[in-house]
Amino acid sequence: MKAEVYLSRRERVRAAMAADGSDLCLVTPGSDLTYLTGCALPGDERLLALVLPRRGEDFLLANELYREQVKMLPLPSFVYWRDDEDPYARLADELRRRGLATGRLAVSDRTPCLWALNLGAALQGALRAGGVLTRPLRQYKDEAEIALMAAGSRAAEESLREALGPGREWIGRPESEFAECLTREMRRRSLANADILAAVGAGAAVPHYQTGSALIADNNCLLVDFIGTYEGYYTDMTRTVHFGPPGEEFRAVYAAVLGAHLAAEEAVRPGNLLEDVDAAARNYISERGYGDAFTHRTGHGIGLDVHEGASVVRGEKTPLAPGLVFSIEPGVYLPGRFGVRIENLVALTADGRKTLQTFSRELLIF
Amino acid sequence: MKAEVYLSRRERVRAAMAADGSDLCLVTPGSDLTYLTGCALPGDERLLALVLPRRGEDFLLANELYREQVKMLPLPSFVYWRDDEDPYARLADELRRRGLATGRLAVSDRTPCLWALNLGAALQGALRAGGVLTRPLRQYKDEAEIALMAAGSRAAEESLREALGPGREWIGRPESEFAECLTREMRRRSLANADILAAVGAGAAVPHYQTGSALIADNNCLLVDFIGTYEGYYTDMTRTVHFGPPGEEFRAVYAAVLGAHLAAEEAVRPGNLLEDVDAAARNYISERGYGDAFTHRTGHGIGLDVHEGASVVRGEKTPLAPGLVFSIEPGVYLPGRFGVRIENLVALTADGRKTLQTFSRELLIF
Repeated sequence: MKAEVYLSRRERVRAAMAADGSDLCLVTPGSDLTYLTGCALPGDERLLALVLPRRGEDFLLANELYREQVKMLPLPSFVYWRDDEDPYARLADELRRRGLATGRLAVSDRTPCLWALNLGAALQGALRAGGVLTRPLRQYKDEAEIALMAAGSRAAEESLREALGPGREWIGRPESEFAECLTREMRRRSLANADILAAVGAGAAVPHYQTGSALIADNNCLLVDFIGTYEGYYTDMTRTVHFGPPGEEFRAVYAAVLGAHLAAEEAVRPGNLLEDVDAAARNYISERGYGDAFTHRTGHGIGLDVHEGASVVRGEKTPLAPGLVFSIEPGVYLPGRFGVRIENLVALTADGRKTLQTFSRELLIF
Repeated sequence: MKAEVYLSRRERVRAAMAADGSDLCLVTPGSDLTYLTGCALPGDERLLALVLPRRGEDFLLANELYREQVKMLPLPSFVYWRDDEDPYARLADELRRRGLATGRLAVSDRTPCLWALNLGAALQGALRAGGVLTRPLRQYKDEAEIALMAAGSRAAEESLREALGPGREWIGRPESEFAECLTREMRRRSLANADILAAVGAGAAVPHYQTGSALIADNNCLLVDFIGTYEGYYTDMTRTVHFGPPGEEFRAVYAAVLGAHLAAEEAVRPGNLLEDVDAAARNYISERGYGDAFTHRTGHGIGLDVHEGASVVRGEKTPLAPGLVFSIEPGVYLPGRFGVRIENLVALTADGRKTLQTFSRELLIF
């Protein structure tokens, strides 16, 4: 992104601060900082923050150690502290010197509690969670962001196709080996931060299963839920495939999940709310008798974080509007037996709904 | 670790709460939660917390989705919330039902600010950072912990030896390829969460450099700083090697850093404070004229987090006592030219100082 993009995003945060009465917004390493400055440093225990006053010039506070990595960020100025200094006192001094108010402090949602409380004490300000300032901006992606997410999703589905390639040759090999193979395919396609859930049979019945040494087996399913970043933006996708002919109940569950997925996708249209998308999936599954086995929300917003913004869940009144990007991922889980989930990403653009994956959602049998 | 280990750790936190006046300690995913329960879930945006009352029974609050992964944790009870519930309200209800006080809330240091402020509001309690309760415990490792860290450090140095193996065959290949090779060697030795800084020449002059495509070159150095976990505990090590005969200044810098490293190690003895270890390294380097080029602290505590507990830095008055484990990693950085850092871990045991690496600290020339 160009410097002007970050500048304009920071100006929009400033406008939100004026509306909500925050004097100072403090943004520590994480996706909000990336969104507002391009800085993608992972963060460690050394205080680093974008300091964004409602009135006055932005600056970055960083440890001296990070000078070389931050000095090219598109920001007006930089304040460095050394390991033998107290960074909170250093910041308080700097704000006094600049004559900036600190009464009402918006601190980014994921700032560690220790930092937030120390900032509140050192600057003598009342704390609030700053996500209210950035979430509404980040939730609505611009064309360039959606283009990146579409490119990342294509790269991801190509990776999955390539990894599944050997088909029945996977039988007898551990799910972890499949995860490693998929990670390599993703890396080849410029996808970073790969995180793969590959689960055989009963493992697939645990929605947030941790991939282990279970063997891919004939007459059993393999659920693959995987994320990765492309130019900083996440992609997220799930498919459940089967080795050998599936039994009757597996087919029934798959049909329920696929139908729910398609019903949810169909509900993505102007005039609907996010909760309507959830209801479409949930009703479809409930009508087929699996309502209690669909234990999670239908989806989540996604962008610089794998989960961000509003969810596709009961009670979520966010209207479907251009710029929203979220997952549709209904699932049915039969503990001790198997689980099925099918997940795509959907973006709303000025031209309507755009599904970011093209990979077939029909049951793939090897 | 056995269930009794976690129980005893939680009892010690409770004792610290009695001393500091906290009513309730809330520990969210991260190393404190691992330390107190064995739970190593990475955490996401769904509130999950160990709830540890000063008086009363501990329980874990988790989203229904994580039931299968948390139910075997050694805790007396579990409270689950669903995606369509407000977890803060659910927790407040549960605490009321159990008649537990919430006036003074200790929230773990790395709990996201949003969660901490929401907890404070929902439970109507005053927030404090809970690290004060756990840091003093975690800082002093028991024999089992030190044994794990020693085993991990041995596995790490074997990995480095193996990766460096081809010697001059690395010339002309990118530093990122070396990092990948080292990552594979670490994985083979059960080291997870590998994070490698491999930096050639000028890159080595940036203490927190991000490994890129610079080519390993003849007549240049390669700095390798790498971490990984073994059974959850971090190891951390740095060596700076040279391809081809080093120039006079490189030799002088290496000698200064090696001398500082040995002086710091020598200062690890009963009666000294952590700042004395820093001073020993810093004085040695300053006397050789490179004081301004040693831009960071001499080391950091390490354990379930790669940086934890007290640092080896000016002003740090923690006395050297059995159980402390920290890095000694002086460095000299000449911007645009090269950098040298040598890092080992040192543990204090009842028998005295124990250096966890055996890999030579002398200049390795390929």
